[in-house]
Amino acid sequence: MSQAPVNAASDADPAAREQASYRARLSSDLEDFLGRQREVLLEVSEESVPLLSAVHALAQGGKRLRALLNYWGWRGAGGEAHGLAPVRAGVALELFQSAALIHDDIIDRSDTRRGAPSVHRHFSNRHAEAAWFLDGTHFGSSAAILAGDLCLSLSEEAFTSVGARAGYDTRARAVFNRMRTEVMAGQYLDILEEVVGPGHEPERAVVRARNILRYKSAKYSIEHPLAIGGALAGASEELLASYSEFSLPLGEAFQLRDDVLGVFGDPALTGKPAGDDLREGKRTVLIAYALSSGSAAARQEITAALGRPDLDDDAVASLRGVIADSGALATTEALIAEHTEQAFNTLAKLAVDETTRSALGSLAHAAVTRTA
Amino acid sequence: MSQAPVNAASDADPAAREQASYRARLSSDLEDFLGRQREVLLEVSEESVPLLSAVHALAQGGKRLRALLNYWGWRGAGGEAHGLAPVRAGVALELFQSAALIHDDIIDRSDTRRGAPSVHRHFSNRHAEAAWFLDGTHFGSSAAILAGDLCLSLSEEAFTSVGARAGYDTRARAVFNRMRTEVMAGQYLDILEEVVGPGHEPERAVVRARNILRYKSAKYSIEHPLAIGGALAGASEELLASYSEFSLPLGEAFQLRDDVLGVFGDPALTGKPAGDDLREGKRTVLIAYALSSGSAAARQEITAALGRPDLDDDAVASLRGVIADSGALATTEALIAEHTEQAFNTLAKLAVDETTRSALGSLAHAAVTRTA
Repeated sequence: MSQAPVNAASDADPAAREQASYRARLSSDLEDFLGRQREVLLEVSEESVPLLSAVHALAQGGKRLRALLNYWGWRGAGGEAHGLAPVRAGVALELFQSAALIHDDIIDRSDTRRGAPSVHRHFSNRHAEAAWFLDGTHFGSSAAILAGDLCLSLSEEAFTSVGARAGYDTRARAVFNRMRTEVMAGQYLDILEEVVGPGHEPERAVVRARNILRYKSAKYSIEHPLAIGGALAGASEELLASYSEFSLPLGEAFQLRDDVLGVFGDPALTGKPAGDDLREGKRTVLIAYALSSGSAAARQEITAALGRPDLDDDAVASLRGVIADSGALATTEALIAEHTEQAFNTLAKLAVDETTRSALGSLAHAAVTRTA
Repeated sequence: MSQAPVNAASDADPAAREQASYRARLSSDLEDFLGRQREVLLEVSEESVPLLSAVHALAQGGKRLRALLNYWGWRGAGGEAHGLAPVRAGVALELFQSAALIHDDIIDRSDTRRGAPSVHRHFSNRHAEAAWFLDGTHFGSSAAILAGDLCLSLSEEAFTSVGARAGYDTRARAVFNRMRTEVMAGQYLDILEEVVGPGHEPERAVVRARNILRYKSAKYSIEHPLAIGGALAGASEELLASYSEFSLPLGEAFQLRDDVLGVFGDPALTGKPAGDDLREGKRTVLIAYALSSGSAAARQEITAALGRPDLDDDAVASLRGVIADSGALATTEALIAEHTEQAFNTLAKLAVDETTRSALGSLAHAAVTRTA
């Protein structure tokens, strides 16, 4: 669940202009929606408002990749430029992402998110500053569990408020439901993979890692948002199928790029310590390739180091060498290139207008070539 | 979020017969619904199925109080005896309750639930049995966070699948949305109350405790389920208002009874250790009364003991004496009696058929006079 920078092209570009207009309406609708929720919490008690404020602060950030894909999915299927449905659906998708991040950060024990303390950290900091009683860390994660639950409910409330286009018997609703179940299943597989340990059916490690990548990230971050926008605009089955042919490989390339950056990214650009994924012990496709194709010595070094929070820069540099030497980096880059090519080939013949094609091309390009 | 035993009257009672039929359809629909979800998880990976199985095992238990209130709310508003809407809405309410329990047990560090290991315990046990790597406790709570999220999403998916009666512009949907936000806000206030400590505005402690009780439990467990059933059947505003006049005091009495049982309950009947709420440090209305009306010595003893996991039976017995002597037990019992009377007075003149009145009377009686 990482994010691609979404670079707007110049203002002269009609796709960029239209996208900027959508973004502005998205932000405004998010503010309105959360403003109305604030009234509900105020009725309960003023002291409950910080729960929503934490959600609000997080949801204001982010690159809006999912909302934008949903918008262009809508436009590509003939939805009107100023339609309300993709705005509210975008709010729902961004709130769902925020909910996932809040709980993900508890699970990954991440202290920061979008340049600020993660939500559980925010609440444990409040606890410390106010010198409250009992265990501040436990209070922090408990409050973040509740904030994530609230955010998940609000995401759905926003999606339902799209109206009849997202009603119980619609394709858009079916995708939204499947998306949520798949992400949670994918996340569970991800934490399971970390604990079952390096010895678990190593010959299937790459298959498992690619499956996790597909459900935890590729479908959720790229394929489903595009499909939801398309479905809201009444896209044909044929168009939705071609959307997937474009978006699923793009999603896989997007997440594989993230995996490479997590190990080889430049800290000056990513804003994270070098080799952060190694310290967190993430069992990515890159790592699975290194374990399956590296030498016995390489396997041993990786296995011993993975998930050690105290890995220093020298150890990270050494692991980078081992992973590169195993051929895993080259294999992963080749896979990124292959998926990217497949995505762009499909995009070239997608039955959408040229503004949408251009916008999707920009989003796709940013997703797979990013450096942070 | 405790549960009342829901005693069916004799088989000769038409309300009891009808309720038994509803229960059977509810169980069957829950099985069908979760069976279809299982197919989705199997498509992701067989290894992800345990996430759903944990939800499934938990959701099969419970007294179905919320589903039953929703059913009689439906019937009282003229819904037909074999209608599908209250069955599916009942599934949604029971899944929402399961989701709340899964996360609540992480927050309260409860090891058991409905006579089995709590979900986080279930997953940390799996970790231990399989001798997996890394921190089993953290794996357990991470998996339970995801299981609760899945369950929360499924609850909503079930509610939406009720169809047009629960559509975006319906009263039933509005209550369902408000219920979720209020529970999460109420839960947050509850954990906040525990950490802010005994010195925080003691003169407002009773007010705060009653507010938490109202939002975390009374509205959610009793008032909203009844209202949802009524709204699904197209109840008038007038009928819904009289439902609330009956159900909100009933919900308050229900939770106050739970507070008393948490301190004074008989372990042989409750199945929990004596004085469990004292060890957990729950800041209930009962405790708030004891702190506000007890002597300085009483306040000191309670404050020092509350939340200590190592409280022995002698300490519990001593605290029971202190709480009773402070007048808090009598005040709470009086409040239960007052709310119960108000509920039954309203029930007597509620504009519903006699079968519904009888069924609601049985549910209400069980909720406030239970011993476990």
